[in-house]
Amino acid sequence: LDTLFVIKIGGNIIDDEQKLRVFLRQFAEIPGKKILVHGGGKLATRVAEAMGIKQEMREGRRITDPETLKVVTMVYAGYINKNIVALLQELNSNAIGISGADGSTILAHKRIHATIDYGMVGDIDKVDTGFLSGLLEKAAVVCAPITHDGNGNLLNTNADTIAQELAKAMSTEYEVNLLYCFEKNGVLTDPANDDSFIPSINVDQFETMKSAGTISEGMIPKLSNAFDALQAGVSKVIIGNALQLKQMLDQQSGTLISK
Amino acid sequence: LDTLFVIKIGGNIIDDEQKLRVFLRQFAEIPGKKILVHGGGKLATRVAEAMGIKQEMREGRRITDPETLKVVTMVYAGYINKNIVALLQELNSNAIGISGADGSTILAHKRIHATIDYGMVGDIDKVDTGFLSGLLEKAAVVCAPITHDGNGNLLNTNADTIAQELAKAMSTEYEVNLLYCFEKNGVLTDPANDDSFIPSINVDQFETMKSAGTISEGMIPKLSNAFDALQAGVSKVIIGNALQLKQMLDQQSGTLISK
Repeated sequence: LDTLFVIKIGGNIIDDEQKLRVFLRQFAEIPGKKILVHGGGKLATRVAEAMGIKQEMREGRRITDPETLKVVTMVYAGYINKNIVALLQELNSNAIGISGADGSTILAHKRIHATIDYGMVGDIDKVDTGFLSGLLEKAAVVCAPITHDGNGNLLNTNADTIAQELAKAMSTEYEVNLLYCFEKNGVLTDPANDDSFIPSINVDQFETMKSAGTISEGMIPKLSNAFDALQAGVSKVIIGNALQLKQMLDQQSGTLISK
Repeated sequence: LDTLFVIKIGGNIIDDEQKLRVFLRQFAEIPGKKILVHGGGKLATRVAEAMGIKQEMREGRRITDPETLKVVTMVYAGYINKNIVALLQELNSNAIGISGADGSTILAHKRIHATIDYGMVGDIDKVDTGFLSGLLEKAAVVCAPITHDGNGNLLNTNADTIAQELAKAMSTEYEVNLLYCFEKNGVLTDPANDDSFIPSINVDQFETMKSAGTISEGMIPKLSNAFDALQAGVSKVIIGNALQLKQMLDQQSGTLISK
């Protein structure tokens, strides 16, 4: 099978143009097929504030009322997505920016939750791997965290989840390497020391660390999702620092997650 | 040669969701390959106003300072583009939304003008017909009026011009029908009477009408561009009402422009 890289970057890189450029230079140099999934960053909040649209967070998630959906569609699928594409073109890395609505790549439904109405937030039902494969023949794909429901509605969808679902779906056709890039150097044993990243972790080690309380609260869902992805056919999951993408690929940085 | 439809819609349709849906239902039913180029509408102005970004017009054109570029990128390539794509998906018409930066489809340079600095406004240098043809094999293409310069910068570009340049470039590979949809039923002999559209016009008739002053000021550049497009290899140009797209294609409405 052909190798495919699915790489997710978060807001801390997107909000800092210098860091974004450092990351993109490394991304551009990866040979072969690749998908970059980007999150939102702080611009959506700034635009919403400037437009007088009140932002509500519930359990760490943005409640997406129709006006907020308008803002995140503009910022994620418009501003951030097209700027990343233009920066990649400058690096002679051909790229095409999409949302999940384009080519009906990611079909989702409005989240159903017993007690919280998240608004226009989408949970993923289906990835069109054929359409994506066709695009990947021509260019790197840059995916914004916006999906659609097939009934004319766009939906705000978590970028980590999009990366995971794209990686899982594409693993029927490719050997998929899924990379989660964030501001830490990997899974840390001491959250205060960025050099304390562990080079690899498997399910048993994860369970032991979880019981011992030596793994940070925020890392637990990330790692659970990584093990799910491996279970679903993804070849490799690496968590590490966006500024050290090359080293992550050379296994000199980041935490390799294995079954 | 295979037929390709390049259809441009303006702000008056984009600003009115009911009208947009009437147009898109007709667009979705066109068999074969098609590109929809959309303009901006009033949302960009509203967002800029809400964000306190002053808008300056010079000779009917928006001066695109860096903050305004941010707004038009968000609104055109984000909100409008992705909503049109989602609405087409609802109509079971697969579509992919792009800007000129995606796939480096439309390369442009910042406008050079002797007396006016238009800001981040792009004049088109090159269309990548191969990339577009690849997309058209898979889906209808929806193009936002944003281009790029290859040096990492996005540029605001007139949608009429994009439609014209795409049509001209694609005419080497397709029999291209270029349709300009606006709020009138075609080229009118009496601007106050929408039924006074002339079914066809050629260059000689255009020159005669121009001399006689029986053609409205606003139509002159549109028609000049249409004749240029025909000269450059486009098969057919039709100007007419976006709400009567089907009738335009059946030659029951609109003005057919011929050499």
